[in-house]
Amino acid sequence: MSDAKRPCAVLGASGYIGQHFARLLADHPSFEPPLLGSSERSEGKTLADVWQLAEAPPSGLAEQRLVRTTPVSLERAGIRVVFSALPSGTAGRIETEIARRGISVFTNAADHRLDPTVPLLVPEVNADHLRLAAHRPHGQGLLVANPNCSATGLVIGLAPLVPLLAPRAVHVTTYQALSGAGYPGVPSLAIADNVVPYVPDEEDKVARESARMLGTLTGGRVRPLATPFVVHCARVGTREGHLEAVTVEATRRPSRSAIERALRSFDPLAGRALPSAPHPPIELRTEADRPQPLRDRWAGSPARARGMAVVVGRLRWDPPYLRCFLLSHNAVRGGAGASVLNAELAIDEGLFPASTTEGR
Amino acid sequence: MSDAKRPCAVLGASGYIGQHFARLLADHPSFEPPLLGSSERSEGKTLADVWQLAEAPPSGLAEQRLVRTTPVSLERAGIRVVFSALPSGTAGRIETEIARRGISVFTNAADHRLDPTVPLLVPEVNADHLRLAAHRPHGQGLLVANPNCSATGLVIGLAPLVPLLAPRAVHVTTYQALSGAGYPGVPSLAIADNVVPYVPDEEDKVARESARMLGTLTGGRVRPLATPFVVHCARVGTREGHLEAVTVEATRRPSRSAIERALRSFDPLAGRALPSAPHPPIELRTEADRPQPLRDRWAGSPARARGMAVVVGRLRWDPPYLRCFLLSHNAVRGGAGASVLNAELAIDEGLFPASTTEGR
Amino acid sequence: MSDAKRPCAVLGASGYIGQHFARLLADHPSFEPPLLGSSERSEGKTLADVWQLAEAPPSGLAEQRLVRTTPVSLERAGIRVVFSALPSGTAGRIETEIARRGISVFTNAADHRLDPTVPLLVPEVNADHLRLAAHRPHGQGLLVANPNCSATGLVIGLAPLVPLLAPRAVHVTTYQALSGAGYPGVPSLAIADNVVPYVPDEEDKVARESARMLGTLTGGRVRPLATPFVVHCARVGTREGHLEAVTVEATRRPSRSAIERALRSFDPLAGRALPSAPHPPIELRTEADRPQPLRDRWAGSPARARGMAVVVGRLRWDPPYLRCFLLSHNAVRGGAGASVLNAELAIDEGLFPASTTEGR
Amino acid sequence: MSDAKRPCAVLGASGYIGQHFARLLADHPSFEPPLLGSSERSEGKTLADVWQLAEAPPSGLAEQRLVRTTPVSLERAGIRVVFSALPSGTAGRIETEIARRGISVFTNAADHRLDPTVPLLVPEVNADHLRLAAHRPHGQGLLVANPNCSATGLVIGLAPLVPLLAPRAVHVTTYQALSGAGYPGVPSLAIADNVVPYVPDEEDKVARESARMLGTLTGGRVRPLATPFVVHCARVGTREGHLEAVTVEATRRPSRSAIERALRSFDPLAGRALPSAPHPPIELRTEADRPQPLRDRWAGSPARARGMAVVVGRLRWDPPYLRCFLLSHNAVRGGAGASVLNAELAIDEGLFPASTTEGR
Repeated sequence: MSDAKRPCAVLGASGYIGQHFARLLADHPSFEPPLLGSSERSEGKTLADVWQLAEAPPSGLAEQRLVRTTPVSLERAGIRVVFSALPSGTAGRIETEIARRGISVFTNAADHRLDPTVPLLVPEVNADHLRLAAHRPHGQGLLVANPNCSATGLVIGLAPLVPLLAPRAVHVTTYQALSGAGYPGVPSLAIADNVVPYVPDEEDKVARESARMLGTLTGGRVRPLATPFVVHCARVGTREGHLEAVTVEATRRPSRSAIERALRSFDPLAGRALPSAPHPPIELRTEADRPQPLRDRWAGSPARARGMAVVVGRLRWDPPYLRCFLLSHNAVRGGAGASVLNAELAIDEGLFPASTTEGR
Repeated sequence: MSDAKRPCAVLGASGYIGQHFARLLADHPSFEPPLLGSSERSEGKTLADVWQLAEAPPSGLAEQRLVRTTPVSLERAGIRVVFSALPSGTAGRIETEIARRGISVFTNAADHRLDPTVPLLVPEVNADHLRLAAHRPHGQGLLVANPNCSATGLVIGLAPLVPLLAPRAVHVTTYQALSGAGYPGVPSLAIADNVVPYVPDEEDKVARESARMLGTLTGGRVRPLATPFVVHCARVGTREGHLEAVTVEATRRPSRSAIERALRSFDPLAGRALPSAPHPPIELRTEADRPQPLRDRWAGSPARARGMAVVVGRLRWDPPYLRCFLLSHNAVRGGAGASVLNAELAIDEGLFPASTTEGR
Repeated sequence: MSDAKRPCAVLGASGYIGQHFARLLADHPSFEPPLLGSSERSEGKTLADVWQLAEAPPSGLAEQRLVRTTPVSLERAGIRVVFSALPSGTAGRIETEIARRGISVFTNAADHRLDPTVPLLVPEVNADHLRLAAHRPHGQGLLVANPNCSATGLVIGLAPLVPLLAPRAVHVTTYQALSGAGYPGVPSLAIADNVVPYVPDEEDKVARESARMLGTLTGGRVRPLATPFVVHCARVGTREGHLEAVTVEATRRPSRSAIERALRSFDPLAGRALPSAPHPPIELRTEADRPQPLRDRWAGSPARARGMAVVVGRLRWDPPYLRCFLLSHNAVRGGAGASVLNAELAIDEGLFPASTTEGR
Repeated sequence: MSDAKRPCAVLGASGYIGQHFARLLADHPSFEPPLLGSSERSEGKTLADVWQLAEAPPSGLAEQRLVRTTPVSLERAGIRVVFSALPSGTAGRIETEIARRGISVFTNAADHRLDPTVPLLVPEVNADHLRLAAHRPHGQGLLVANPNCSATGLVIGLAPLVPLLAPRAVHVTTYQALSGAGYPGVPSLAIADNVVPYVPDEEDKVARESARMLGTLTGGRVRPLATPFVVHCARVGTREGHLEAVTVEATRRPSRSAIERALRSFDPLAGRALPSAPHPPIELRTEADRPQPLRDRWAGSPARARGMAVVVGRLRWDPPYLRCFLLSHNAVRGGAGASVLNAELAIDEGLFPASTTEGR
């Protein structure tokens, strides 16, 4: 990876995912500390002023002020990479405009996720889908989306299982953390001593995005996995970490040890020097009662990959049904960290240069 | 129903389910206020001393002292009915001994649930299984079990659906409340900001007990429903009310309105005067985000049936998959109230007399 | 109390206090079921649509639609009494205008609480302050305020203690429930696994309002109690019920039993038939660990006074310091119920007639 | 500080404080990784088996097995320092016996805290009290206690204020975290949606221990501070971090800036190289709503001092009353970290040698 650090910006830096972006980019080996973009409401405040995470804000950025940005202002500031935590709905148009100006965009927003020309990417799962970006017009920046926070952990856990089990169907039921709804997000009176069995649009997103990522890229198009995803989504009162109960209805009957081996040995990024990639990406636990949001959400090593591993446990194999629980940090693995890792992959693939002077 | 009230006792009255029994029996039309039995640890304390529920203890019983009981002492005290909240494991032998002395036992304990001669009973679902008790030796009391707290709500919700959909498989994932583990039960440090994806033995219980209750009684034996139950159980931080995400994989394709009608019109106890029976037993909600433990756990009318209804919502019918969420009060519908209703059914069936003098 | 029921309205009926008003007024002996007023945002929705309380909405009002109101529209609709749950800040002007039209206003808003001509009233504490309202212009409705939710329970607990102990200072530290901030109110991410040691303006309100209510009315003016109130306010993660740690630094040294007697025998409304008045208004508990929000928030009898009693416990008397914990339901005793009781007192005092035809 | 690391042991390593000891000592510059002592119940299990903290167990100790220890076995194993997380009640006798064998004991247990010959020590507050240990018999190990978890943060916050304000009284009300009661500790049903206004013995401990630590050592005896401490203790549903509302009734009237300066400049250990000492020990925050358990419990730098700083905020100075909120990590600053810092101070004072061969 090139030594030169790329100037970058975080859009939507006052939000929950935006703050995780700021945390991850404050001292990243490939990016300069980010410009922090925000809406009018937070403009002029410092990152510390708007900070909502339990962890302290990164010391180098705490006193930096949030600024309003436009595609033009980003270009003028020499920004080469934008990490977008803009709200879905308004994100799409702005991201397109930014990419048109030659700035690469890695986005957590939903707007472009099902756009046939945009890679919906989880490097461990479908790194080859990045080729979709090869066809973009000359001079245009990359536009790469990370999936929904519940879909990310799921597809990583499924990636080694799909070829082994050739599923007839996949059943997923979620226990989603509060932070998945951002800040202020879920009112405390709505969730204290409660579970809310509804997360708007989430079940469809999990089903569609998972099928797309586990699909195959042929002839410049992604053909989604045909297996149906049957999904229930609910919100529980945990702060961070989406837990999922997963049942794979298999059409094949490998041994239990073959299944465990497939999960444990899965590490398609093993040879690559992506700083935020966890090794292994899946941690398989054998205790009776894991994974748990409280204890497992920060799984992942090396240090830069904290919160990037998917923890799988309670494996039960009663053919044709393979059951397990699966956990991933919704705001890291399923949010900011996902797009940071996507950007690292793009750099490793030589898809965007360290500085404007290297031209394109 | 006979006017004479039967003398009854609650065993395990110091526990969470035992306290719900006390609450429900304090002013029951068919039973005298119960004798409160407890272990040595709580002997001599008042019900108020050991009270753990959020609601105040019933005024008539609050100052009553807990006593140690034996099968012999119960017989001598003229007890005709025992409601057992004894811990599974020790319950079975004691309950058998009590029944041998001619006292009828309605139990929440697991020990006898799969005993082929004991009715595992939910009146709305398999009232006919009570016939199993007809074969008991002369002079022996009834021994009737209510199912596991997660199974109860489930089989009520499934009862109208099984004939309509002829399921190929049923998938269930639970969000179980703290009180399901009794008191002291789950340590606060284990569950604050957490979900624990494990409830000992629960998944097997749900699968086996549900199949048995939805099975058919022929030739004095219950043949369980053959449909596989694929179950995940997890504990969340709510106080009361088990939420379940249910997917029925159907082999038939009725219309959505036929499914809704089946749920709404289901009321097999409609003609019977069972005081704790909710009418309707299933409340179908159409809001986007129900049922919720906080809001729906006390569903059920009339007043005596509070907490006895099952609330179903978020019906999604994408054939062959019918998805819904389902909620029932684990300690009422899935515990104390379940056995009280079983006893009411037994009285209505003429299976045990109001007083010893009526003989048998 | 007159048999005729007064037509009334709840303003701000879509909010948390407004919904408690609706609950309490749905079947009140002195008031007709209320007209439900709301802002433009909720106009046209049913009460059930906007309902946020854990308890089900009152059956008679659930399907009633919220309407926008003006002082003129209220007058035309023949409304005689308004219960105001309007947000402080906008409430004051509107309430004044309504009262000018001859409609009596009982308000939970803060705007008029320190207005020298408006009774800031807790019937058990300063019923005589209602005389302030005698001087209002002919034809004008009453305007009576209930205090801040933390001040209400406090002054009730202090009322029998102040004459006995002649305090040099009163120290109060609160553990305030989520519902004190209304809905949506406190974001779940702000309070899950947290305490927030700040409630805007609350400490000043508690100090000033308490001193005023415990003060003396002489010459048409209230002279506040001179004793300093030293107050800390914090928000904790409970749903309902404000707990307060109270220390009275006494200048007198009565016996402990005299103190207990004063608390237990306190019942200044004993002779009066106010439907929502709890008897006794203070419940003194002697367990080691009470009062608790979960168990004690609904204290109060008779049934209509549920949530209206103040529960005092953990009395520790180490002269000159009397320490105790004190709990009251913030949204009932400290909100909607407070104003309903104020209205009942005003009726009992003959301060407003049952109907317009009875003149004024 | 000597380069040689001392062999040490943690007693009660399976408990919550014991695990924090293990975490802090896994890679300590002055101590070897600890022997992990436990009761019979946990003997033979690995540290990972019994682990209860949200953070992962220290990699070097996770697979180490817990062993039963006796004073004799500790001596034979060459242990020089014991960190005791034994339960109060049984701790005292064992700790005395261990010290008699020449092993130094730093204990979190309450048994010796008010023993006139044992230093009850917080290095920033009363380092001079360590002189009490000088008088121990030749050959005997040190025996040094850290105070109650609520008292520790309090006396640090008060240390710079007492000389400045010469308090007439100190009022303290706590919001104590679940972990203060250890594991399993508080049942979830006791605290979910609740506050428990009682922590056994805690109020007395806070009052007596604080007065002792802020007292003066003269003639080999500690004369406690005469100022009364008026204390309320309650348990709330947070995981870690005790919040305290503190009011100092002052007899002097310094300026507000003098008070802030006193808090900010307080750093009596500034010149010393104690690895776990936070600099500054008091972090004064000026936001409207801090300190908060969730955000401030891990305060303290350098890295080894995480969780060792006391965070003070919401300073309100209305003479004679100074009010503030104060937070410290109950299990680190108020538990394991407290004793580790005490041991570091003792080393720095030359009170015990690095190895047995250096004599005693």
